[in-house]
Amino acid sequence: MRILVLGGDGYLGWPTALYLSRRGHQVGVVDNGVRRQYDVEMGVDSLVPIASFDQRVDRWKDVSGLTLDRFEGDLTDPAFVSETLASFEPDAVVHFAEQRSAPYSMIDREHAVYTQVNNVVGTLNLLYAIAEQNRDIHLVKLGTMGEYGTPNIDIEEGYIEITHRGRTDVLPYPKQPGSFYHLSKVHDSHNIMFACRIWGLRATDLNQGIVYGHDTEETVLHPELATRFDYDGVFGTVLNRFCVQAVTGHPLTVYGSGGQTRGMLNILDTLACVELALEHPADPGEFRVFNQFTESFSVAEMAEMVRAEFNGDATIDHLPMPRVEKEEHYYRAAHTKLLDLGLNPHLLTRSVIQSILAVAEAHKDRVDPGAILPTVEWRSTASTLVTADGADGNGPSFTVADVPSGISSGGS
Amino acid sequence: MRILVLGGDGYLGWPTALYLSRRGHQVGVVDNGVRRQYDVEMGVDSLVPIASFDQRVDRWKDVSGLTLDRFEGDLTDPAFVSETLASFEPDAVVHFAEQRSAPYSMIDREHAVYTQVNNVVGTLNLLYAIAEQNRDIHLVKLGTMGEYGTPNIDIEEGYIEITHRGRTDVLPYPKQPGSFYHLSKVHDSHNIMFACRIWGLRATDLNQGIVYGHDTEETVLHPELATRFDYDGVFGTVLNRFCVQAVTGHPLTVYGSGGQTRGMLNILDTLACVELALEHPADPGEFRVFNQFTESFSVAEMAEMVRAEFNGDATIDHLPMPRVEKEEHYYRAAHTKLLDLGLNPHLLTRSVIQSILAVAEAHKDRVDPGAILPTVEWRSTASTLVTADGADGNGPSFTVADVPSGISSGGS
Repeated sequence: MRILVLGGDGYLGWPTALYLSRRGHQVGVVDNGVRRQYDVEMGVDSLVPIASFDQRVDRWKDVSGLTLDRFEGDLTDPAFVSETLASFEPDAVVHFAEQRSAPYSMIDREHAVYTQVNNVVGTLNLLYAIAEQNRDIHLVKLGTMGEYGTPNIDIEEGYIEITHRGRTDVLPYPKQPGSFYHLSKVHDSHNIMFACRIWGLRATDLNQGIVYGHDTEETVLHPELATRFDYDGVFGTVLNRFCVQAVTGHPLTVYGSGGQTRGMLNILDTLACVELALEHPADPGEFRVFNQFTESFSVAEMAEMVRAEFNGDATIDHLPMPRVEKEEHYYRAAHTKLLDLGLNPHLLTRSVIQSILAVAEAHKDRVDPGAILPTVEWRSTASTLVTADGADGNGPSFTVADVPSGISSGGS
Repeated sequence: MRILVLGGDGYLGWPTALYLSRRGHQVGVVDNGVRRQYDVEMGVDSLVPIASFDQRVDRWKDVSGLTLDRFEGDLTDPAFVSETLASFEPDAVVHFAEQRSAPYSMIDREHAVYTQVNNVVGTLNLLYAIAEQNRDIHLVKLGTMGEYGTPNIDIEEGYIEITHRGRTDVLPYPKQPGSFYHLSKVHDSHNIMFACRIWGLRATDLNQGIVYGHDTEETVLHPELATRFDYDGVFGTVLNRFCVQAVTGHPLTVYGSGGQTRGMLNILDTLACVELALEHPADPGEFRVFNQFTESFSVAEMAEMVRAEFNGDATIDHLPMPRVEKEEHYYRAAHTKLLDLGLNPHLLTRSVIQSILAVAEAHKDRVDPGAILPTVEWRSTASTLVTADGADGNGPSFTVADVPSGISSGGS
């Protein structure tokens, strides 16, 4: 299969590209490098050193003998999207290429607008390019379990059958996202569903939980194949952050009571789920939603698990809630569709936590303790980030290409 | 009350501003003039001649002795939004200022992206400005009944109680919008709901049906106070179009079987509903949704009603469906909340249809017959508009200010 991985330089895009390449697919990797620019803006860096996009693609060829077709450009540039699809002629597109941090989207107005425009316009450009060139291309889009929020009923996979006043219909599952980032994913889902309906596109929306873990069978083959590891307050995810806090002798910081429960999955299962979606494509016109996680844990439970596995003393601090979300809530979410396709989950065992602690331990000299605590406050419209290099959070210093193409700046 | 009307130069914004002004409110009108630029792009014009924004504001002062504070600028320019709010200090903001044509949003990729960026970013900028300056400002936002689509169950007002696997919750009503324009309104609704939750803003979303009619008590006071009347295939709405077709001797063009059923309301009820929402504001933190229509009709029924009232021969033609929508479907939508607040509907009587026919008759020499038929096809990614002045539909020729401000063009 010819598979284009958008965001192929990122935490999950890169290992996904290697995994699919090793499985015999012809893989193209597309990236604009913006994830590395967020690091510059935030004044932080991946805990594990990562090679440049060029270097890692070259190294993969050395190690595996396999070639990745590399494309540098921005999805908000419609000509780039169109030319890349025309040149690579994919059978499927795996779309990781979005700003994916909730706190980043909540820094201030500029970051909120940037996140929504970047994510929504990039996906619109992709939908148009597919519709124009080949409506048979299977779009595998990364969504998030955070689209659903925390309703007081079971969460289903994308749709719910509702009986109301004696009539029944199957309708899109109601969404209650908790950040401007999560909202951008809800907007995407609605746009993609509509594109499938009017153009007969085939799409799978992977509503992914929070991913943990670092090494994959392919990334361990050479240090220059390593993927990034984020632990900071803006891009770091909770389990990685707890492991870094433990090995650097800092308290594990739980927001509020820690009763917030979330679906989680191992990075190895991200790769497997994407592969299962690709092997079993959606039908023409079908907008299919899979909930992509394997287990649910509360934040407090995760902190306890890390404390239990850490070979030393670790304490747990409860911080005031920076976000607006329920600290205690009902949470039960369906996730059977990927299991039905054959997913064999890698669960969050003691040895998995130990392996993440080992990654953190090996690189703990690179930890910037000032980057770990939350700096973005949901109730404020302008959080002042104080970062290692003095960036002030007054807007991204990078640029995106030509967002509303043809409708340029300057009107009254 | 100090009320800022955004989109105050448009079909509904202008009469709303006059109505509120005459009721003793201090009214500010904000517009960027883009609705008039769409006319230039499409090569059409309002059937009823309209005065310039300046002229009509000055004429209102002559006629009524009342002053409207006029602000020219674009909501996608965050500095303009912030400065306008700071200068006018509104108690309430009525937000009509969005690209509001479904066919326009479906012309091609550029128009789809423009519509979503313009509407979503404008509203985000407004939410941030309210949150920064005065969270007590009541936002009255124009949504659309088209957000719901045509589910096979009753449509409720914004929320629905769902019992599922033995548990019950009240959740946002599932949305199935039918164009990139309607999608932009769904995106807005989700963003506003979230802003109310995190910042305690108060907002009312008016999910309006299709508006018909032209004259109001205020606009008839002088010809230069008239509001626009659209009949073209892109911005014209169905009942106005049928009346223009009848008086110009053209068949009334029904798309498909005409079984599409929609909520409708008189322009006079738009004014009354906005006033009722303003008089009974949402609570702090409340995102309230009213379905703003008074009666439902199928397209075929409306064509029959116009044919019956037209003083001459009118035929009905069934055209192939340009849109992707159900031609026959269940439709029952709640609309009791505005009635409960005291709305006294102006129904679609024979005399109302006769009055719209009279407007069309009085200006029929201004009709461009070539502008009436549908030119935008939902299944195509690039409709070729053939318009009176030769515009080719290859993108808006106007510009919007500084869309993702601070994140300018030029990235890799």
